[in-house]
Amino acid sequence: MIEKTFRYEQVATKIEDGIRALHLRPGDKIPSVRKVSQDLGVSLNTVFQAYANLEAKGLILSKPRSGYVINIPPATLLPPEEKNVILLPSSVEITAMAAMMMKNAKENGIINFSILAPVNDLLPISKLNKYVASALNDTKHENYQYPLIDGHSRLLQQIALRTFKWSQSIDQAQILVTNGCMEAVNLCLDAITKPGDIIAVESPTYHGILQSLERRGLKAVEIGVSPQTGLNLDSLRSALDSYDIAACVFMPSCNNPTGYSMPELNKIELVNLLGERGIPLIEDDALGELHYQDGVFPAKAYDKHDNVLYCCSFSKTLAPGFRIGWVSAGKHHAALEKLKFGSNISTNSVLQDAIGRFLESGQYDRHLRKMRLSIQSQMIRYLGAISDCFPEGTKLSLPHGGLSVWIELPEGTDAFALQKAALEKGIGICPGHIFSTSDLYYHYIRLNFCPLWSPKIEKGIKTLAQLI
Amino acid sequence: MIEKTFRYEQVATKIEDGIRALHLRPGDKIPSVRKVSQDLGVSLNTVFQAYANLEAKGLILSKPRSGYVINIPPATLLPPEEKNVILLPSSVEITAMAAMMMKNAKENGIINFSILAPVNDLLPISKLNKYVASALNDTKHENYQYPLIDGHSRLLQQIALRTFKWSQSIDQAQILVTNGCMEAVNLCLDAITKPGDIIAVESPTYHGILQSLERRGLKAVEIGVSPQTGLNLDSLRSALDSYDIAACVFMPSCNNPTGYSMPELNKIELVNLLGERGIPLIEDDALGELHYQDGVFPAKAYDKHDNVLYCCSFSKTLAPGFRIGWVSAGKHHAALEKLKFGSNISTNSVLQDAIGRFLESGQYDRHLRKMRLSIQSQMIRYLGAISDCFPEGTKLSLPHGGLSVWIELPEGTDAFALQKAALEKGIGICPGHIFSTSDLYYHYIRLNFCPLWSPKIEKGIKTLAQLI
Repeated sequence: MIEKTFRYEQVATKIEDGIRALHLRPGDKIPSVRKVSQDLGVSLNTVFQAYANLEAKGLILSKPRSGYVINIPPATLLPPEEKNVILLPSSVEITAMAAMMMKNAKENGIINFSILAPVNDLLPISKLNKYVASALNDTKHENYQYPLIDGHSRLLQQIALRTFKWSQSIDQAQILVTNGCMEAVNLCLDAITKPGDIIAVESPTYHGILQSLERRGLKAVEIGVSPQTGLNLDSLRSALDSYDIAACVFMPSCNNPTGYSMPELNKIELVNLLGERGIPLIEDDALGELHYQDGVFPAKAYDKHDNVLYCCSFSKTLAPGFRIGWVSAGKHHAALEKLKFGSNISTNSVLQDAIGRFLESGQYDRHLRKMRLSIQSQMIRYLGAISDCFPEGTKLSLPHGGLSVWIELPEGTDAFALQKAALEKGIGICPGHIFSTSDLYYHYIRLNFCPLWSPKIEKGIKTLAQLI
Repeated sequence: MIEKTFRYEQVATKIEDGIRALHLRPGDKIPSVRKVSQDLGVSLNTVFQAYANLEAKGLILSKPRSGYVINIPPATLLPPEEKNVILLPSSVEITAMAAMMMKNAKENGIINFSILAPVNDLLPISKLNKYVASALNDTKHENYQYPLIDGHSRLLQQIALRTFKWSQSIDQAQILVTNGCMEAVNLCLDAITKPGDIIAVESPTYHGILQSLERRGLKAVEIGVSPQTGLNLDSLRSALDSYDIAACVFMPSCNNPTGYSMPELNKIELVNLLGERGIPLIEDDALGELHYQDGVFPAKAYDKHDNVLYCCSFSKTLAPGFRIGWVSAGKHHAALEKLKFGSNISTNSVLQDAIGRFLESGQYDRHLRKMRLSIQSQMIRYLGAISDCFPEGTKLSLPHGGLSVWIELPEGTDAFALQKAALEKGIGICPGHIFSTSDLYYHYIRLNFCPLWSPKIEKGIKTLAQLI
């Protein structure tokens, strides 16, 4: 798969490089479209497109009657420090908190910075509606009957096709469609762990993973993540030497909550390290398709050892409410099939078929490109606003992808108290406590930057700053 | 809810009573429409409607140029004897067999007597399609976002409304929507049992229930069922006295595979017996709405002790492929919410909303009435054909409801070998082995009478008879 680069994209990259090189500050003017057109010897239209592209990314802003100005500076704030600690195995109990958060977020009028889900404006709703209708009106109405355990053949085929660009692609016969990514991770844990086992996770890690460990009586060892390279492989090695680790559950790309991704070479090192030791990696790649840079692949793409159980989802890219995810567990596939059959027989057929048709139409990549750009632009606006008004001592993750930023608040801030106070003002946030079995993150919050930027959102961020 | 009885229904009942009283045999003529009209003093049209009703039930047959004749006699075959045994607790292992059956049944051109699912002709597909479209085109597109853990409010409300005719109705706040009935049963088992617990089930019992016990390391005690009154309460009492039973999982109405229902008074006795002893009853009512007689309620309807965890589904009545079921677990509701959230967050929203809209439109009861009549008519045709051609020594359950008949074949017949041979002839059946932890039912099969009666089906039954 070779991505075509348009002329205007090349121009946009040049201008972006220039902005950074000149250390331009917010509000600074940038050259007019006409001037750039003359300087670079390209058409006015190309420069317009390039500027539109930079504006969509949030780097520049069109001001009436004064042309283009710099919007916000890249990264004025430091990221939170890597914890780089190995916590003692301990049992986990955070489900109740997470469930309450989910309930709160649904309340009318609330500004939802808490639940990680793309807003409807980012989703191809009218197209998906059309494909649901096609799936329902299929002449034989097969989607009304029990689907096969593995899933709808159209979707299975399309998923397999998407992995053909990976070093190690996935065979259609080794894919199982699930009710979202959480079910996928749970099936994997059920297949390869037993109560009391020690599982390595990231620190911080997605609370859903901790919930799954809690339910199964598993112990967690938390491995630190770095703002530059995600999961710390040295810490992991040391943990593997110290503990009898039964499996790892990691999000190597666009980690939730930090947004960090491991560099591709680190992913290769990770799968080889675990593959050689025969310690299975459950890869939660729910957010992996929302990377902001090109050339990002899941760890599974490099899995020569058949040691990665890969969990993915369409919840963050197409439709959270459809609850369609999938898992490819390699040699554990038959075990997962059996578990899935016993759990709920199979996943609903109609919505699988609809997503399969959308993928078949070839629109998914285009949709993803557009979506990534929108999200990145949102991210920059949010980070800019947070840098502007959050108190001194605040640190921000600079996400490589995904839908959330991980914020370290000044020492002493109680994220729980903040959550409660924010909720009273109609703002939902996610306290750091639920991303660890420890209390390391008591003064952290995860903030989902999906709600479209608006005066209301800006006010929400300011209110939050005041509450801190 | 008082059901209106039409004049023609009263007439049909009179005629049916007459047929039985006179011991008419297949092929015997019955009086002409004109004669009955004169004798009973009702309009010709009323008698026509009554005859159409009896024909739909399969009791009579309209023969060109000779009027109406008796179709098949009621119950020429004996039902299988009640096993009435208490099996020693033992572990369970049948998932692999069941999964294979599912796979086989999907093969092209196979006559599917194996998978219990209503054929599309019995489902209100065009109406449901319309409501899925409405659910998708809702102005705010809310169904694209994560639904609340409990489910879509419209569906929850409609489900609660349907229980208002029960002695003990269910509050909307105590309902949780699931991915089908199996997930409901599994959540209940997870909430109230621990590995090694002894669970009472029926003998024979639905293989899905045995799979759920197997996965959780639970032991099964099997309680016999009688052709007249379903679950044997004396056997249950004796089992409760002998074993430390942690919970029961029963299908008191339209049991799968036998089709037997407990009389309402027995259900009351059952819930009181278990309620007083504080042993929870997980009620699997997946087929309960497909009873052939009126006045059938689930055991939950009589549950004064808040001791029944009630599992139900729309898979057998509206759309197997939608995978929408629900559970009301009373005091265990919060525990189930937590388990559901950790399993797969929530059930897809679109299809919940669509079913909610269908129920809201008031068409569900009408649909059920029509569907029950069709199924009962199918049942009679199938039972007639089986009585005609299966070898001596065959015994048939006479279902009170549901979609399957339980067939005891002559001693020595190996249902597994039969299944294999039948599959080679393109016929899927369900061997008795998977309905028990014992080998009691090695010469039994479950036959699903959903495929619409046709010359092909008739030939299938005959082929099956030859194979035996």
